Amino acid sequence: MKHIVLASTSTLFGEAYLAYLQPVMATLYQGVDEIIFVPFARPGGISHDAYTAKAAAAFAPLGIRVTGLHTFADPAAAISQAQGFFTGGGNTFLLVKQLHELQLMQPLKAAVESGKPYMGCSAGSNIGGISMQTTNDMPIVYPPTFETMGLIPFNLNPHYLDPIPGLPHMGETRETRIGEFHTQNTTPVLGLREGSWVYVKDGTITLEGTLSARIFEAGKAPYELEAGSSLSFLR
Amino acid sequence: MKHIVLASTSTLFGEAYLAYLQPVMATLYQGVDEIIFVPFARPGGISHDAYTAKAAAAFAPLGIRVTGLHTFADPAAAISQAQGFFTGGGNTFLLVKQLHELQLMQPLKAAVESGKPYMGCSAGSNIGGISMQTTNDMPIVYPPTFETMGLIPFNLNPHYLDPIPGLPHMGETRETRIGEFHTQNTTPVLGLREGSWVYVKDGTITLEGTLSARIFEAGKAPYELEAGSSLSFLR
Repeated sequence: MKHIVLASTSTLFGEAYLAYLQPVMATLYQGVDEIIFVPFARPGGISHDAYTAKAAAAFAPLGIRVTGLHTFADPAAAISQAQGFFTGGGNTFLLVKQLHELQLMQPLKAAVESGKPYMGCSAGSNIGGISMQTTNDMPIVYPPTFETMGLIPFNLNPHYLDPIPGLPHMGETRETRIGEFHTQNTTPVLGLREGSWVYVKDGTITLEGTLSARIFEAGKAPYELEAGSSLSFLR
Repeated sequence: MKHIVLASTSTLFGEAYLAYLQPVMATLYQGVDEIIFVPFARPGGISHDAYTAKAAAAFAPLGIRVTGLHTFADPAAAISQAQGFFTGGGNTFLLVKQLHELQLMQPLKAAVESGKPYMGCSAGSNIGGISMQTTNDMPIVYPPTFETMGLIPFNLNPHYLDPIPGLPHMGETRETRIGEFHTQNTTPVLGLREGSWVYVKDGTITLEGTLSARIFEAGKAPYELEAGSSLSFLR
């Protein structure tokens, strides 16, 4: 049975890295004393080592050791032997390119589907969806495909942002962009606001946190779903 | 000699489509009575026909007829015979995929480099750069490559948006995203605010409009460049 947390963001405004997720992590990683961290999204261009150190500091209070996936001579074998995983945010194109080119997307998917706990934030959550095609990130590198793990039967739009009233900017709103996605694709999209996360356990999928999320289904008007709601209908 | 306008946006807040660009268009398309419109970016999923009609209405006051590129049986031949071009905004991934798959990116580049006037707005401006890798758009389709026409020796970031003070949103700012681009690429990037455009004529490249633009060069701190400045140094 899959056990997964896909969070909109790692960090809430004014808070420390992963601070608001500590209780969730304690539940998700119960009984786990070491995880593999996937640092490939490199937010702001941070090095794999520095990013892994940042993640390790946030897992230390839980008594969980963190090892970067980039440090293994045989990362696919390391994934199959790991107790659990965390993929940090950053640039989704970079993350997806690296995972595919190192042929690690399928091993990671298989390990998570076998029941090993997985947490993603932002880009790390995007790869839990069907594809990375509803990321907000800039295409700074060219991945061999946009397909991701499909741990859930829909796509995420992390850091979902409502239109800002009175802003005279004419660039597309997030809602317009997701509408454009649905002119070309039918995969449902969950607009996940900062502070919200998707929780997968015992075959159910739930919207967690305190905020509602915005649901986009092809051919339907977007609508809000309250925190605590089941997402199992969305496919 | 190339004669090109690459605008940040088609439409200023509260104004009609292409209204602020009418004087620029009168100069760019002087002596031209018909252009080809490239409708492939399909903003909001609008049809090729509907988008072409919208462009035609904005060109009518100049006495210029507009024909959609999608209407030609042999679009490559049509490009080689055309008097000039306009590519509208929308989704850059869709635009680039279509141009490459129909093998029209190179013919369009060749025609513009032969001196035929070209105007782009937003996505239509992105394809004037080296690559589409600094677009703001969502990757709703998978193009065969991110390379574009390279009519100018740098990339654009249209609808350039400064950080909004006091916004507690933790998603990346535009400046952070472009910084991430430069961890992987060395192509300079021009952050082009709405109301600004790049003007190429007689071998010179100039920043036009009333606003400054933000210049991003790999390994340097970003800086502002005043309207009216030459951009010929940027490569």
